[in-house]
This record gives sequence, C-alpha cells and structure tokens, in this order.
Amino acid sequence: MTNATTTSTTRVRPEDERAFIELAFKTVGVDEGHARDIADVLLASDIRGIESHGIARLRWFYVDRIRLGTINRTPDYKVVRETPTSFLLDADNGLGHPPSILAMKKAIELARENGIAFAAVRNSNHYGIAGYYAMMALEHDMIGMSSTNSIHFAIPTFGRAKMQGTNPFAYAVPAGEEPPFVFDFATTTVTYGKLEIYERKGLKLKPGWAVAEDGNPTDDPTKARFGGALLPLGGFGTDNGGHKGYGLGALSEILCGVLSGGAFGLELSKEEGPRVEGGITSHFFGAMRVDALRDLADFKRDMDRELRDFKNSAKAPGCDRIYVAGEIEHEKTLEYRRDGIPLVDKVWEDIDALAGEIGIPPLRRFTAG
Amino acid sequence: MTNATTTSTTRVRPEDERAFIELAFKTVGVDEGHARDIADVLLASDIRGIESHGIARLRWFYVDRIRLGTINRTPDYKVVRETPTSFLLDADNGLGHPPSILAMKKAIELARENGIAFAAVRNSNHYGIAGYYAMMALEHDMIGMSSTNSIHFAIPTFGRAKMQGTNPFAYAVPAGEEPPFVFDFATTTVTYGKLEIYERKGLKLKPGWAVAEDGNPTDDPTKARFGGALLPLGGFGTDNGGHKGYGLGALSEILCGVLSGGAFGLELSKEEGPRVEGGITSHFFGAMRVDALRDLADFKRDMDRELRDFKNSAKAPGCDRIYVAGEIEHEKTLEYRRDGIPLVDKVWEDIDALAGEIGIPPLRRFTAG
Repeated sequence: MTNATTTSTTRVRPEDERAFIELAFKTVGVDEGHARDIADVLLASDIRGIESHGIARLRWFYVDRIRLGTINRTPDYKVVRETPTSFLLDADNGLGHPPSILAMKKAIELARENGIAFAAVRNSNHYGIAGYYAMMALEHDMIGMSSTNSIHFAIPTFGRAKMQGTNPFAYAVPAGEEPPFVFDFATTTVTYGKLEIYERKGLKLKPGWAVAEDGNPTDDPTKARFGGALLPLGGFGTDNGGHKGYGLGALSEILCGVLSGGAFGLELSKEEGPRVEGGITSHFFGAMRVDALRDLADFKRDMDRELRDFKNSAKAPGCDRIYVAGEIEHEKTLEYRRDGIPLVDKVWEDIDALAGEIGIPPLRRFTAG
Repeated sequence: MTNATTTSTTRVRPEDERAFIELAFKTVGVDEGHARDIADVLLASDIRGIESHGIARLRWFYVDRIRLGTINRTPDYKVVRETPTSFLLDADNGLGHPPSILAMKKAIELARENGIAFAAVRNSNHYGIAGYYAMMALEHDMIGMSSTNSIHFAIPTFGRAKMQGTNPFAYAVPAGEEPPFVFDFATTTVTYGKLEIYERKGLKLKPGWAVAEDGNPTDDPTKARFGGALLPLGGFGTDNGGHKGYGLGALSEILCGVLSGGAFGLELSKEEGPRVEGGITSHFFGAMRVDALRDLADFKRDMDRELRDFKNSAKAPGCDRIYVAGEIEHEKTLEYRRDGIPLVDKVWEDIDALAGEIGIPPLRRFTAG
C-alpha cells in the first residue's frame, strides 16, 4: 500500500517543498499555474508516503527534460473532442500534471451535470501518482478513477519483450467518518523503483517480480534492470494469475493510449531516460456521482461500515492490523503534515544540485521541535 | 485465461444445451423470457470454455435454489432510481441473469444517448460469467464492463476471516479484424472450483492460492476448502501484491453492494450452499461509447494493431504463443460451435439426474462425425 522504505530523518516542511518545486519550474520557464499544479501533485505523493513519485523525480523526470527540450515547456493544449459526458485533450507534449488536472476537473464538472463522465489526455508525459486525480472527485462526493500508460517495463504472459508499463489504476471512493477508500496500484507486481532499491541494498528479488533478458525469472536485481523486465501482477506464467496483471496493464494501455488516439504498442517500447521521446504518454480519467444511484448520506454511512468490517475482521497469525486501501497513506499524511516529510539523502543531494544548477535557494531542512 | 481442464469427449450441441436449460427453468416455474436469458448466459460460458460457470452449475446453483425457494421464481423487479446516465434495479431475490441483462441493456441504451452510463442490480443472485454482460456492449461499438460481488471466500491482506468473494471484473473492448479484447478475471488468485479440482486429483495447491483455517498459507486443498479461504490475486501478504487483489475485491464489493444499497460486508460472510440466503448478491455494469472520444474506424484499426503488437512480441523460453485477453475463449467458441461442447462425466450425471427429477427428457449427447 506504500512504497515507503524511509530511514532518513532529514525532513522538509510541506509548504517549503511546495514552494521549492513551484519555483524550480517557474525558473526553467514553466507557466506559474502549471508550476503550481505540478507542485501540488508531487507534494501529494510525498505527503502520502509514496516517495518514489514525489520530489525524488523532480530533477530527472521533469526539470531535466524541460531543460533538454524533450518536454515542451510552453504547451498549447487542444480540445480534440467534447461531449456532455466526455472530454479529450491533446497536451502538446507538455508536462503531464496540468492537463491531467484540467481533464479531471472537466470530468467532474460534466459528471456533476450528467451523472458520470470520462476524459483522456494524449501527447502528454508522466503525470505523477494516479491517485491524485482519482481523489479530486472526493470533495465533490463522487467516485473518481484514473489510469496512465507509460513506456514499457513489463512482459506479457508467455512473452519476454517489454510490452507494457507499470500502468497504474486508481479509484477513490468517499466515506463518512472513515478516511476515503483510495486504491492506487501498479499493474505490475512491483515497480521499477523497487528493483533499484533492492540492487542498492544487495537484496535478492522475490519470485514473481522480474525476469532476466532471456525471459526466465530472476532474483538478481541487476539482471532484471539491464535487459530484463518486470512481471505483471500475479507473476510469471499463469499459475498465480500473471495473465490477470497482464490483462489489467493492457486495459490501461487501451483506455489511455488507444482510446485517446495517443501512442501505444511498440511506440511505447523505449528505454526510460531524460532524452526519451516526449509526448508518448496518455491518461484516462472518470468521475461518477454517488447520488446517481444512492442517497449520499446512506452511501457514506454504509461505506464506513464496509471499511470497518474489513478492519475489524480476524487477523492472520502475527498480524495485528488489517488496512483498507488508502489508510496507510492517510496516516502518513497526518504525520508528515505535523512532523515534516522525511527525504532520503540521495534525494537531498539531487535537489541541492538542481537548486545550484538553476540558481534558486536550496530547499530548507526542517527539524521537528 | 480459461478454467478449462476438460478431458471428457462426451459433447453436447450448443442448441441442445440451450433448449435443455430453457426447458429446465420453465419446468420449475420460471418465466419463459427469463429462462431464455439464463440459458443464453450459461451457454455463453460453456461455449467459451469456462466450464465452471455453465451448465455445471444448473442444478446446484440455480434449479435447486428455485425448488427450495431460496431464489424467488417469480420476482417483481423494481426500478429504484433512474437518471439519463444511471439505472438501479432491485431484482426481488430472483435469478441473477435476467435482471442483469435488463440492466446492461439499459446502460447501453443510456450510453447510446449520453455517451456513458452505469447500472447496478441489488437483491439478486449469481449472474454467471461477468464477461457476458461486458460483451453485450460490443455489438453497439461500446466498451462494456461488469462486476459482481458474492458471499465471501477470500481473506483480506493480513486477515484470516473470509471477507470478500471472488468478485470478478470484466471489460470488453471492440476491435476490427481481431477478436475483441475480453478480459474477465476473478480478483482472487484462483477460484473456489480450482480447489475442488485439485482435491479431486490429489494435487498440492500452488503458493499464493489459499490459506488454512489458522490463516497460514496451505498447499492442502482440503484444508483450504474446510475452514480455510482463498487468497486475493497477488497471494499472501504484500510481497507479491496481495494487497492489490484485496483492493480490487473490495472495490467490486463497494461498486456492487454498497453503491447499490444491497448487501455487503459481514452480511456476505456466509457459507455457500443451496440454502444460503438469497438476494444478497449485487452487480455493477457500465457502457461507454468509443466515438465519444475517437472515430470508431480509427479506434478499431488501432485496437487491431495493439492486440497484434502483443501477440507478435518475443516469446518466453518454451512458449510459442502470446495470447490477448479473450483470445483463448474466442477460439474455443469457434471449435465448440463446430464440434460441440465437451462436458465432464460428473456434469452429465448431474444434469441427467436433474432431468429425471423434474421430468424432462435428458440432454442429448452429440458425437461429431
């Protein structure tokens, strides 16, 4: 439910992180409103404990690509199609977050008027955590969803070529007194970042995580990273349902890439890196009014009971708690708002270097009092 | 992608199977139109090679429950709520298939007018394969989806009490020359039927499939079946993504049970059997026009390329073919239409006994020839 493996105690205050990200983007020529959008999404990731998708990516995934010109710093969005329940935006190879916020807002607005709506963005780039966009629906008492495709990291069942990304889906469902159900998951067993962490720590991969270049399962993170590939959720072959993770990943690529008229298939079989071709990522969004089917108060009361039924059910040996989706992230948010967000040394080094390069003040350390 | 483990060579002609199922239901007092609906869904399952959900369930899941009165043979459906993009039906504890066909038809009709629509059915019973309803969208050039909850067979991550069903999701996406993408999957690693097959054959379960009563993983199908439980897709704990299967199962129960105002949570923690309380199952449906985002011909052309890119990609060692979702079932359909549907001896015994009990002619064997 979280990728956090934090050990560092050097923390940052959320408002400082937000201001730093915003300033970094403005400094390299990104529109102020867009810079604010991106800061919001990256901060949401860090504050939820999903450290892989937050400020850790600021330099490598975003600012470097803006500076290299692989991402268009001044995109000219185009509305490709719009109906009372649908919206398609071409993001002109700009950063992925601002057009995604725009598209999800549009989906919410159309759903408010018509009950349910969907939207897609094509010709875009990494949009951060899928959960951010799904969660935008919550304050409108709607169920939200989002998915994104990406360049390919994972093999299909019975294959050995990388044919799909980590292609996450996220769903957010409002509750009453309980935190909302926020379910944001990659359709691969683990993400690429996990291979890097295991390699750094000299650990062996678990079965079901990755294959080597020859297409056979491997527990060696280096072999998996160089020439190898991730496995879909469910692992190798079909014994543990690997075809289900493969199907989910393919569904994401279809909804995001094919349905939007964006890139898909072999067009996404590229190696990740700052010079990877921009504009080949696409996203999908949906929003649905709860009260199109049920009275809101009844629904929220029942959601509370549903979530509590899970949490109060009997625990497995050695386990003292059962979580529902989004609960760990919710608790991280409360903690990090109070105590600051811990960032690992490598991230501090990276953003300090970035600050120096683009000539902005370094991000301030925060020590809880 | 298929649960088929057929070895029997005793086959049945599709039209004979359909007529037999229809007659069986009419004989026990089910309305003719409803009997036709059920026959259509059960036959669709068998002809796609999903033998677990077809005529094998006729007696135990459906006819016996009608005869015992646990399912209402003459339900009085009630439209609970309807908007231009949503529809909620109370099925009055009738059989699950007819109200589900009605609800999916309604979703398709509303989506035709408004781009996208969703529907739910509550107070229902088993509805057969989720894929049937998703596939109803295909002939309308729409993307279809469906999910159903059920009584509980699986533990949540870190739990040991059964808190969710096999809760499948199905998605159907039209293509051009290629068969459609039809992705229908249980959110548990395997279904309950697989435990039975492994027990019968004296085989050990694979890791990630099930736990024993004490909540620890087991490879003993008997221990799993009696007091134990299924594991969510991704298996035990979180190492292989078990929390993702758990989240998907919970999402299904929320969309089907909570959003419809049907049964959910502990109300579904019952033991399966002909006398299990009826009307505690709920279903969810969606339909979305492809041309709300893209021109249909372009989309179909691109779907063909997407599916072919997967299929033509490099094969893993020892594998000579990569499938896309629905492809195996599509090929089974072509074969079984021509040669008849193979049914295992146990199923023949069961339906012969049923025919005797309710006084209808036994189902005719078909020998290709």
